[in-house]
Amino acid sequence: MIRTELRVIYGDTDQMGVVYYANYLRYFEAGRNEYIRAHGLRYRDFEERFGLRLPVAEASVSYRIPARYDDVIAVETSMAELRRASARFGYRILRGDEVLATGHTVHACVDLEGRVRRMPQELVERLAGSVAGGAPGEE
Amino acid sequence: MIRTELRVIYGDTDQMGVVYYANYLRYFEAGRNEYIRAHGLRYRDFEERFGLRLPVAEASVSYRIPARYDDVIAVETSMAELRRASARFGYRILRGDEVLATGHTVHACVDLEGRVRRMPQELVERLAGSVAGGAPGEE
Amino acid sequence: MIRTELRVIYGDTDQMGVVYYANYLRYFEAGRNEYIRAHGLRYRDFEERFGLRLPVAEASVSYRIPARYDDVIAVETSMAELRRASARFGYRILRGDEVLATGHTVHACVDLEGRVRRMPQELVERLAGSVAGGAPGEE
Amino acid sequence: MIRTELRVIYGDTDQMGVVYYANYLRYFEAGRNEYIRAHGLRYRDFEERFGLRLPVAEASVSYRIPARYDDVIAVETSMAELRRASARFGYRILRGDEVLATGHTVHACVDLEGRVRRMPQELVERLAGSVAGGAPGEE
Repeated sequence: MIRTELRVIYGDTDQMGVVYYANYLRYFEAGRNEYIRAHGLRYRDFEERFGLRLPVAEASVSYRIPARYDDVIAVETSMAELRRASARFGYRILRGDEVLATGHTVHACVDLEGRVRRMPQELVERLAGSVAGGAPGEE
Repeated sequence: MIRTELRVIYGDTDQMGVVYYANYLRYFEAGRNEYIRAHGLRYRDFEERFGLRLPVAEASVSYRIPARYDDVIAVETSMAELRRASARFGYRILRGDEVLATGHTVHACVDLEGRVRRMPQELVERLAGSVAGGAPGEE
Repeated sequence: MIRTELRVIYGDTDQMGVVYYANYLRYFEAGRNEYIRAHGLRYRDFEERFGLRLPVAEASVSYRIPARYDDVIAVETSMAELRRASARFGYRILRGDEVLATGHTVHACVDLEGRVRRMPQELVERLAGSVAGGAPGEE
Repeated sequence: MIRTELRVIYGDTDQMGVVYYANYLRYFEAGRNEYIRAHGLRYRDFEERFGLRLPVAEASVSYRIPARYDDVIAVETSMAELRRASARFGYRILRGDEVLATGHTVHACVDLEGRVRRMPQELVERLAGSVAGGAPGEE
């Protein structure tokens, strides 16, 4: 599990005084980026090294407690399931100990022409593996 | 079912050249607003006339074909389920005949202090009813 | 001058109950797209037919009266100045007769490698010209 | 001058492969929040303690070098001018040593009914002053 901290800005809120519901998917993305980076990969590697993309096929969010302006929130991202040609990330958004929202995204593994492809072994090992401390290629 | 047309702008896309995944929830919202308006209500009525809010409790999207810059897309919004204290909207996003994405949102019915409330009969009838042609209060 | 109508959604507002200040630049973009389309061009033509791009070099907004949720607003877009290698668009955002905001954007004319280029005569004539009723290539 | 670091996410980019122009105003806001916090204030204090708001009256951005996905950028925020009833913030966005963009925002000082008000002395001193290490009320 990888933890990313973010601060809610005004631009994230709506006039109900809470974070607009679509923005949780932005937070999930920030968490997913960090997960990938922490495992020694960069998103651009998928394309450059593997000739692959991982477009989102499915996303869902369950909203429990609204996040508010100026909150420092944490996104906890984990790999929920890794299959031959898809990956499922799970997310929890917290403020301190409170769980504000949970959700997941499912990503298909496709080549640059959009055809579904088996995920290469190296990628599987990277994504499923434990966190790569100072992995090469990581910033 | 209520149909809303939108044009995709640059600001909706990401560097993969397609609409960013979170923005489908913005399109769903535009469709939901139009659905509510077409049934003779305005969102502010919930609060002003009924003392109620309908915060999103759950949202999900299934992505099939990416929407692109300058596409004219249609959001088809329908009431999928109306319960004592919640409502579920269903959405389809189309480009011409192609279904680009589907999804739903679930909304809790709460009062201004956030307590779950039974939906008033008038609201149920409005939301479930057929489209209100020139309903009073509609713009 | 080209006029584009838009409806403000919840996702455009912030917790002050008004449209978030960055979103006016989204509205300007929607107006600019419509301006370009009304003159018989599509944004993708710049790249495909002319090998050019028009990245934003400068943007400014003057905010007078806040736009609010559910407002129908109009973006009036005009070509303020067309120079050898740049174009300046002017914008007004209105709600009915009220001017809510004004602003402009300046765009450099560059080739696909990012070098500044003189704007081709055809492009100048298109952009400066009067609106192309049913111009070829227009949707 | 206050420095805030941010990482660019996919959702910030557009299909030109660079950060969408409106999002620089989001970055400015993140920098402004941090500036205010570093001077011992929170945005909500304006309303709660002083009965005032600082809505944006003007914003402008000058774009030099595009920010890209996954970049770590720094927003440098400073108080450019503090007048009787308005404040002007200046911003620079950097990636390493490169200045990617500069800009400013002007904010009017108004009361909760929207009338222009003189800025209270305490607020002036706070905003103009040097950074408040561990000021009370700060998180």
